[in-house]
Amino acid sequence: MALVNDHFLKLPNNYLFADIAKKVNAFKVMHPKADVISLGIGDVTQPLCHAVIEAMHRAVDELGTSAGFRGYGPEQGYDFLREAILKNDFLPRGIHLDIDEIFINDGAKSDTGNIQELIRWDNSIGVTDPIYPVYIDSNVMIGRAGVQENGHWSNVVYMPCTRENGFVPALPDRRVDVIYLCYPNNPTGTVISKAELRKWVNYALKNDTLIFFDAAYQAYIRDADIPRSIYEIRGARKCAIEFHSYSKTAGFTGVRCGYTIVPKDLTAATLTGERIPLNPLWNRRQSTKFNGTSYVSQRAAEAIYTPDGKQQVGATIDYYMQNAEKIRTTFRKLGFEVFGGENAPYIWMKTPGSSWQFFEELLYGANIVCTPGVGFGPSGEGYVRFTAFGSHEQTEEALYRIEKWSK
Amino acid sequence: MALVNDHFLKLPNNYLFADIAKKVNAFKVMHPKADVISLGIGDVTQPLCHAVIEAMHRAVDELGTSAGFRGYGPEQGYDFLREAILKNDFLPRGIHLDIDEIFINDGAKSDTGNIQELIRWDNSIGVTDPIYPVYIDSNVMIGRAGVQENGHWSNVVYMPCTRENGFVPALPDRRVDVIYLCYPNNPTGTVISKAELRKWVNYALKNDTLIFFDAAYQAYIRDADIPRSIYEIRGARKCAIEFHSYSKTAGFTGVRCGYTIVPKDLTAATLTGERIPLNPLWNRRQSTKFNGTSYVSQRAAEAIYTPDGKQQVGATIDYYMQNAEKIRTTFRKLGFEVFGGENAPYIWMKTPGSSWQFFEELLYGANIVCTPGVGFGPSGEGYVRFTAFGSHEQTEEALYRIEKWSK
Repeated sequence: MALVNDHFLKLPNNYLFADIAKKVNAFKVMHPKADVISLGIGDVTQPLCHAVIEAMHRAVDELGTSAGFRGYGPEQGYDFLREAILKNDFLPRGIHLDIDEIFINDGAKSDTGNIQELIRWDNSIGVTDPIYPVYIDSNVMIGRAGVQENGHWSNVVYMPCTRENGFVPALPDRRVDVIYLCYPNNPTGTVISKAELRKWVNYALKNDTLIFFDAAYQAYIRDADIPRSIYEIRGARKCAIEFHSYSKTAGFTGVRCGYTIVPKDLTAATLTGERIPLNPLWNRRQSTKFNGTSYVSQRAAEAIYTPDGKQQVGATIDYYMQNAEKIRTTFRKLGFEVFGGENAPYIWMKTPGSSWQFFEELLYGANIVCTPGVGFGPSGEGYVRFTAFGSHEQTEEALYRIEKWSK
Repeated sequence: MALVNDHFLKLPNNYLFADIAKKVNAFKVMHPKADVISLGIGDVTQPLCHAVIEAMHRAVDELGTSAGFRGYGPEQGYDFLREAILKNDFLPRGIHLDIDEIFINDGAKSDTGNIQELIRWDNSIGVTDPIYPVYIDSNVMIGRAGVQENGHWSNVVYMPCTRENGFVPALPDRRVDVIYLCYPNNPTGTVISKAELRKWVNYALKNDTLIFFDAAYQAYIRDADIPRSIYEIRGARKCAIEFHSYSKTAGFTGVRCGYTIVPKDLTAATLTGERIPLNPLWNRRQSTKFNGTSYVSQRAAEAIYTPDGKQQVGATIDYYMQNAEKIRTTFRKLGFEVFGGENAPYIWMKTPGSSWQFFEELLYGANIVCTPGVGFGPSGEGYVRFTAFGSHEQTEEALYRIEKWSK
């Protein structure tokens, strides 16, 4: 008989955002007139910028003509976009990449989920905690995470990020084969300094560890000293794969485009110790199971790198960061401990009681939705996440209500 | 140390289309003035139809306004498209689906590659031979295909489709856990009758076999009696997952949109015999590792189902099928045995010698590129594939040259 992949059955049934939706719906049924505002979801709200809209219209027009029509593009993405990435996202920071180290995708979620296909099922995994759930869940599905007990997976090493350690994770006390890092961090909104990131690269080089570095929020970094790419650290080409996304950079959550860097120097070992370069393996994976990103989406992404595009995309990021500033200062004024939100669109807040208790109090008291931190992992208990992706009007109204409620 | 997934290393280094490109390039270097025409590649050439172009422009405009902006869509796709599929592709053929049995994707290649994640690594696989390479390669990468010897994978059962059996594959002589079927067939261009397909469904129900049915070319079926969906056969909901694509239906190879049907009645077993429904598992897979298809691409797909869209898309398919007719009749006139091309955009032709020998003769003799059948599997030896996706002008010029050359 056809046998199911029973690793799927180990996944817990509760999804964080489904649980939130259920609780919000229950509230709305009881209070049909309440105007609930969400500061919880990690999705953008502002329209695409003009440069992008114009580029998409042009691309659509091309596809409607015999001369301009394009069928299958390269699975790795069009060179026009890969070259723009190389010249704009990396060269100015002194990072030299080959064009075929860049793989265009339909968003970072796909690649952060699929990348684990390149490694053996029994590698051990290290994650900072709290964490974006895809990193662990995609490993659970192949059996690599082991079994779950008390919210911890047996083959996963958790590296807590809390106010006690200033949200700077300690290097693991043992060897770990693969480590996921995400900076600026989702959900805590904190960043990593060059000196701290160097420790991780050195750990990886010394321990033959592979780092999966998620840079999806790098466009929100304001401080010039904070690394926007792990390849700013010497040696990272030999130990790290990096994921980028236009979702939050340019409001592409519905457009679907991002990219992954797999350096040619990067290798992993066979059981007999042979070193296998991962770039051709990822190329093979993508050529077999992916057929390229929508041409229109790739032209949209290219437009972000034009002078107009840069200015317009920057303006929207500034817009969101004004929300972040307001959320931070309001909660601080109200006496809460607040983290992140200075180089990231997320604000992480210590709650007096449990995450879910504060969530409910805020929902029932001020009709505002936040995200309970415990949903991102054990070390998220006692925190909630706010996002800066709302409109100014909604964010201000939400903060006004919160001030009133807390008095 | 981080260990590589060494199943990737079992994949043969030669890619069919890369090998073809190499040989064509070598020819062009030697004959720089030759005007090479390809009847080989499986990519469309005609522009997107007006209804689709207009829908895409409208969708782009929406994304540029505050009121119309959409961020993350549902991972499973928007209901406007799922409802259009349900009403147009299935209801008229008497097939009743629930909307959440339909999963919108970025093209059938992704899902035909990813679907194997739902089943245990040690299920046995059955394929018709010759075959679309993704089916086998995606199983090799997880170790399910076993090891390769003489062009055959040890855990794969091959079901030859040749002129000797009229391209009707025989049921396997043993139990197989999972079977891939593709009709209309790539590469042979042949179709399956309802009576024959019923045998497969009955085999699957009797043997607890899972069928992965690839219907990517269903829009090319002209004969009303040929099934366009496996769900036209009673019982298929209990044993089959079906893949659809707009790539060839509407020229979406660069737009990226398709869909997969996972019926709620479909289950696979655990080792202890418990039956696990696959619909929620695929939903979980997609929610974890995929973030939905581009909004613009989904609106483009929706437009295919409007009266204008249907008419325009139908006209392009007719256009390609005129090529198919010309290719078939020309080769027949020249004394070749030709198959397919009546309900499919592919023409499969018996060659006097080996596939590659004919490929080279045609390239050097008439400067025409075809696809060597042996690249699709052992039973493809002695055949080549022609595609109907060129322009009329190019196809006619190619056939004119071939006639001249064969005299």
